[in-house]
Amino acid sequence: MADIVSLSREGGAPETPLGVCLTDGVLRLTLNNPPANVLSVALLERLHQELDAAADSREVRVLIIAAHGKLFSAGHDLKEMTARRSDGDRGRAFFEKTMRLCADLMLKIQKLPKPVIAEVDGLATAAGCQLVASCDLAICTDTSAFCTPGVNIGLFCSTPMVALSRAAHRKQAMEMLLTGETIDASTAKEFGIVNRIVPKQYLTQVVNKYASVIASKSPLTLKIGKEAFYAQADLSTDEAYDYTIRVMVENMLARDAEEGIGAFLDKRHAVWTGE
Amino acid sequence: MADIVSLSREGGAPETPLGVCLTDGVLRLTLNNPPANVLSVALLERLHQELDAAADSREVRVLIIAAHGKLFSAGHDLKEMTARRSDGDRGRAFFEKTMRLCADLMLKIQKLPKPVIAEVDGLATAAGCQLVASCDLAICTDTSAFCTPGVNIGLFCSTPMVALSRAAHRKQAMEMLLTGETIDASTAKEFGIVNRIVPKQYLTQVVNKYASVIASKSPLTLKIGKEAFYAQADLSTDEAYDYTIRVMVENMLARDAEEGIGAFLDKRHAVWTGE
Amino acid sequence: MADIVSLSREGGAPETPLGVCLTDGVLRLTLNNPPANVLSVALLERLHQELDAAADSREVRVLIIAAHGKLFSAGHDLKEMTARRSDGDRGRAFFEKTMRLCADLMLKIQKLPKPVIAEVDGLATAAGCQLVASCDLAICTDTSAFCTPGVNIGLFCSTPMVALSRAAHRKQAMEMLLTGETIDASTAKEFGIVNRIVPKQYLTQVVNKYASVIASKSPLTLKIGKEAFYAQADLSTDEAYDYTIRVMVENMLARDAEEGIGAFLDKRHAVWTGE
Repeated sequence: MADIVSLSREGGAPETPLGVCLTDGVLRLTLNNPPANVLSVALLERLHQELDAAADSREVRVLIIAAHGKLFSAGHDLKEMTARRSDGDRGRAFFEKTMRLCADLMLKIQKLPKPVIAEVDGLATAAGCQLVASCDLAICTDTSAFCTPGVNIGLFCSTPMVALSRAAHRKQAMEMLLTGETIDASTAKEFGIVNRIVPKQYLTQVVNKYASVIASKSPLTLKIGKEAFYAQADLSTDEAYDYTIRVMVENMLARDAEEGIGAFLDKRHAVWTGE
Repeated sequence: MADIVSLSREGGAPETPLGVCLTDGVLRLTLNNPPANVLSVALLERLHQELDAAADSREVRVLIIAAHGKLFSAGHDLKEMTARRSDGDRGRAFFEKTMRLCADLMLKIQKLPKPVIAEVDGLATAAGCQLVASCDLAICTDTSAFCTPGVNIGLFCSTPMVALSRAAHRKQAMEMLLTGETIDASTAKEFGIVNRIVPKQYLTQVVNKYASVIASKSPLTLKIGKEAFYAQADLSTDEAYDYTIRVMVENMLARDAEEGIGAFLDKRHAVWTGE
Repeated sequence: MADIVSLSREGGAPETPLGVCLTDGVLRLTLNNPPANVLSVALLERLHQELDAAADSREVRVLIIAAHGKLFSAGHDLKEMTARRSDGDRGRAFFEKTMRLCADLMLKIQKLPKPVIAEVDGLATAAGCQLVASCDLAICTDTSAFCTPGVNIGLFCSTPMVALSRAAHRKQAMEMLLTGETIDASTAKEFGIVNRIVPKQYLTQVVNKYASVIASKSPLTLKIGKEAFYAQADLSTDEAYDYTIRVMVENMLARDAEEGIGAFLDKRHAVWTGE
């Protein structure tokens, strides 16, 4: 078992609102902001710190984002935001800061040179659902559920839709966004929001298995591939090929590809150096 | 029960080829152009009029596009088009007008500040299938069917493919387009063309339920969210976040979000003013 | 039965590594590079030659890409590539040539004015999986399987991801790319990588049926439609409509549309001239 640690220098003592645990190259971040794991500014900033530290750490190969409690995350901290309506600018500057911090977190997950897996047990709503949709992979229990209910409180889930509509088909995303209703795990898998559903007692075991499989790959190769994935997704097909051909050639010339292909041809295990 | 009305000043007396009925904020437009509900210029123009009027109406919160008869719609009016081959320009100007009118209708549905639900019972072909794919949501009976059979008559469904390929996966769209064959309701749901399948006797009831759920939300919030959805879909992920952050901040500062969030925190019902 | 032929002047005698057979307007290309049908430079060049010849041939209306042996294709020829690491530039020029040749093959399939169907029985890995994803349609046996395992050998499947991520949802593509694990036929159909699964004894029969259905359409209409499909897919919705309206008008004015629509209205069979 690993100790609770913080990779971030700014992190330090208090494990709340984010648990941090590094085991065998897998960094587990656990949302721990009861009762609803809302993405308060404090939690968003802690997540940014740990992701930045993880990006630079040679120890961390794969990340898991999990949560304590019955709710995965209820999204933005509405109390915190409402309190700022009494600011001189009616909260505008604070809302801008919060929305930017939250969107940048989602972008940071996708730009991180290491894969990130969402481990979901419970309800993920609004920016909580966006967080799941933004991870590279997501695995959930059969009792998990997902919704983007902003429409119910007058605040359409417009930033969550960015992640949601890039994970699922349009009409499926639209149904969630316009009705605000909750979908179950099986529908979320059908929609493309999660990769796999497992019984609650096996969740962490299965997620750890995925993480360790991925952690066994070359970190350089994962970095190259993950970066290329999101970059090419925003290009035309012709541009995407121009770009990925360059990526493939550089990847071929890296030491880990030479080692990996050599090991494959020689029927032996590859030893990665990450170069 | 509501009377048959026309919201459009140009509409007026004849309910054919489009039935118009407003009930409790839900505007039901019923294609009524027997026997195949073809999208003649007259019907396309009527739809444009009613959508324009609905966009401006404070009464209308949600729209339903339904159809009388066994066919939802067979798409373009091939007889009308063929008759214009004897024009001096072999019909070119008329074809341009018709195609523009039809594509603009599909774009108008997506740009309308109010959600539009397709209520489908029967066969939707070519531009009729495109109409279903272009609505924000679609609900159909288990005996409904969908196809883009232009390839069978030498006229590939090139405008319908715009909506179809943005609703479904590429290979699924390609199969419909290249073979011209008809898919059943269940395949259409799997493809992402419809949201839900219901038995015929419950179709209108279920669609009305969806419409009334959505009509109970803040009209301003729906407007903001729907507009953002289609706008961000055409942007890169980074651009989409830059854009939706601005949308969220403006949405937060609107009265309905203040009311909605306040009501949620106070555990009371929100009262929308649409501001 | 048709003879083994080559449409390409450069092709000629040796049927290896690519079988070529033209029957009733359907050109069947069979990968025949045992034991794993790797996409060596020689095979890639043969495929380019035959696709170029097929593009220009009035005889060819539809193409099938199939494979001999238990593997559909294992992708790039790793032995051939590894041998070039001793070049003065450590293989860079050769890798660039190979990657360009392979990506251009995938683009050529999509830009070909004739539909291309993948007929898959067995495992399709890496660029072999990309080849399946790049065809307009794909039909496979229930024992077929698919993977992008480059991550296992230090060479992320960055060019295959272009085709894969345009066929399937993001998280589904990401799972294949990050874990390198193999999915079965049924998962591949769910993901949108294949259109249909058939028992092995019916595979060729079903693929030939699809091919002959498509071959019965107007070649001009297929050309117009297929070209429009991939072109519009990279445009915004507004641009896609501007473009496809022009396509539809030109299509309407072509002889085959006049014939096809006329035949439909007259309830007779159309006779295509491809004009």
